[in-house]
Amino acid sequence: MATAGKVIKCKAAIIWEVGQMPSVEEVEVAPPRSHEIRVKIVATGICRTDDHVLKGIFPNIEYPVIVGHEGAGIVESIGPGVTSVKPGDKVIPLCIPQCGECGCCLSPKANCCLKSHLCEPLQNLMPDKTSRFTCKGKQIHHFLWTSTFSEYTVMPEVSIVRIDNDAPLDKVCLFACGFSTGYGAAVNCAKVDPGSTCAIFGLGGVGLSVVMGCKVAGASRIIGIDINKDKFTKAKELGATECIAPQDFKKPMNEVLVEMTGLGVDYAFEVIGRTDIVVTALKSCHLGHGTCVLVGAPPAGSQLSIDPTLLLTGKKLIGCLLGGWKLKDALPQLVSDYMKKKFNTDALISHTLPFEKIAEGFELLHTGKSIRCVLLF
Amino acid sequence: MATAGKVIKCKAAIIWEVGQMPSVEEVEVAPPRSHEIRVKIVATGICRTDDHVLKGIFPNIEYPVIVGHEGAGIVESIGPGVTSVKPGDKVIPLCIPQCGECGCCLSPKANCCLKSHLCEPLQNLMPDKTSRFTCKGKQIHHFLWTSTFSEYTVMPEVSIVRIDNDAPLDKVCLFACGFSTGYGAAVNCAKVDPGSTCAIFGLGGVGLSVVMGCKVAGASRIIGIDINKDKFTKAKELGATECIAPQDFKKPMNEVLVEMTGLGVDYAFEVIGRTDIVVTALKSCHLGHGTCVLVGAPPAGSQLSIDPTLLLTGKKLIGCLLGGWKLKDALPQLVSDYMKKKFNTDALISHTLPFEKIAEGFELLHTGKSIRCVLLF
Repeated sequence: MATAGKVIKCKAAIIWEVGQMPSVEEVEVAPPRSHEIRVKIVATGICRTDDHVLKGIFPNIEYPVIVGHEGAGIVESIGPGVTSVKPGDKVIPLCIPQCGECGCCLSPKANCCLKSHLCEPLQNLMPDKTSRFTCKGKQIHHFLWTSTFSEYTVMPEVSIVRIDNDAPLDKVCLFACGFSTGYGAAVNCAKVDPGSTCAIFGLGGVGLSVVMGCKVAGASRIIGIDINKDKFTKAKELGATECIAPQDFKKPMNEVLVEMTGLGVDYAFEVIGRTDIVVTALKSCHLGHGTCVLVGAPPAGSQLSIDPTLLLTGKKLIGCLLGGWKLKDALPQLVSDYMKKKFNTDALISHTLPFEKIAEGFELLHTGKSIRCVLLF
Repeated sequence: MATAGKVIKCKAAIIWEVGQMPSVEEVEVAPPRSHEIRVKIVATGICRTDDHVLKGIFPNIEYPVIVGHEGAGIVESIGPGVTSVKPGDKVIPLCIPQCGECGCCLSPKANCCLKSHLCEPLQNLMPDKTSRFTCKGKQIHHFLWTSTFSEYTVMPEVSIVRIDNDAPLDKVCLFACGFSTGYGAAVNCAKVDPGSTCAIFGLGGVGLSVVMGCKVAGASRIIGIDINKDKFTKAKELGATECIAPQDFKKPMNEVLVEMTGLGVDYAFEVIGRTDIVVTALKSCHLGHGTCVLVGAPPAGSQLSIDPTLLLTGKKLIGCLLGGWKLKDALPQLVSDYMKKKFNTDALISHTLPFEKIAEGFELLHTGKSIRCVLLF
């Protein structure tokens, strides 16, 4: 514990300005303040939401910023008042906190904690409106109170949960976002029933996790849709019964899916973050009861324009935040289920790179070559 | 049965052109063909959907047309192949059929029968693309296969259900549309839970029926919203705990409702048919789990434009057709429950007029003076 209470110098990837690739730098990480925890990140995935910040389409963000939110690590030190973890504990950062006290945390139906950065006018400072990161004399912003693209990072206690100390951090980091988001969208938000037909628009790491959720839920047809056919082998391995690419058809995908299924799919998942695809997904749904689930986060400022008669026959359009999980409650159990081999999330990790190669990891994301790329410190 | 097999001359109200008030005329009603039933309508309510045809904002309608769909009557004669009713039976016309055989009828979750006029390119001819009505030598169109603004009307067997022969037709006609739509929106579609908070935008006959459904479901706060404060007394009599009028506030109603409830309402019902009010209702919903139910039918060609982040935190937007009831299964039971005084639907009938005064009935609707006006033949 030689570092406790002291500033730590370590490497981190900083996005200095919109549109710039993250640049690996030496940063200073201040000690945790009251009800904060400093964590040594061991492994972190690269998620499309991180890329949204790079592209400037994530709302209410200031630069420079250290992104990253799909991490796992070990508690280095704790600030005053922290009771739920101690140095040496393996933890997962929560990109949606669970304060346990607000109207959402107290409701059995909601997971959108109100003590979240989402409820702040500017999302990327700590709850006390300051930062723990500096680099070259400049304050660097946090992201989702996680900033896992730093070897050491500071988080509020509401944004962290302890997991089994035997868990392999280079694998279970995916539970922090991608896997939980997709899997929960199917089993929690949509509540896919046995025997149902599902369509998944977008077969990245989250989309494939939706596929896994649909399979566990007992769906009998799981139709994956992606313009990148390289994703199809993995999708089928994880449970997709059919995979189709829009460019192979002259008709819109909703017409194709309605023809394939007779009356449309029982559940359609939009896992790309495009409002036009949400409309396609909604049109693909069963006329009388289909459920369209918004999983992908559309760019800030997007508008979704739909013909209301699409809904009036009994369809549903539902939003889903991080798979509907209350993360503090759910993650330890999901990790434990992983250790019992309930989920093959390892199959989602297509690449593992040393942290310094983060730019290569983003390149793999941009070119559609990776499913999940995990960076190791 | 002197009339069976013959053309019947009787009075009916015809909308000759868009924008014209229904005009009471003598029409000829042909006998029922195969799998059709001719019914003597005894009583019929006036619903806003009828008014949509008058205003030209109902999709795929040709004129001249006899509207009316909230009726109740007695079977006059049956065509070949009809087995479910016989002359003399009291019946309610179904504005959404229940064929019992299609993908929606066979699904426990859907009620949008696929043998419906809704699935026809032109909604207002009989299933065989002809009409049973003529007036002054002209073919007159049907509406929803019900056309209850005619003393005699012909319907397909899929669009009719027998009810208790002791039922008072001048009262239970409301079960054909208004009451069932609103009540079912609360108990079937939204599945309002005990103790929840509900907001109802629009306190006409359907909106008040939503209020009744919310009350039966055990909601603890039922907030009625209408610009017409004359509706408030009745709303409170039927279960509303509070009523508010938008013109009494400087803020948008969603802000008012979020302030009144802390985090927004658990269930918001749009019962007006305006897409801008759907957006307000969605914004009024609980951030983490609120459900917004589309009950009102927006004008044909409307677009609903929403910020998708409104949904992403876990809200739901759901459509609801005729309260989600499979009408053949549900109406006899609802009527029987009425006869056991489970519902005080009589309170929804503000006016009763002879059929000839139909124009006065529409006038009462337009000026907001009626809740439900029932016309008697």
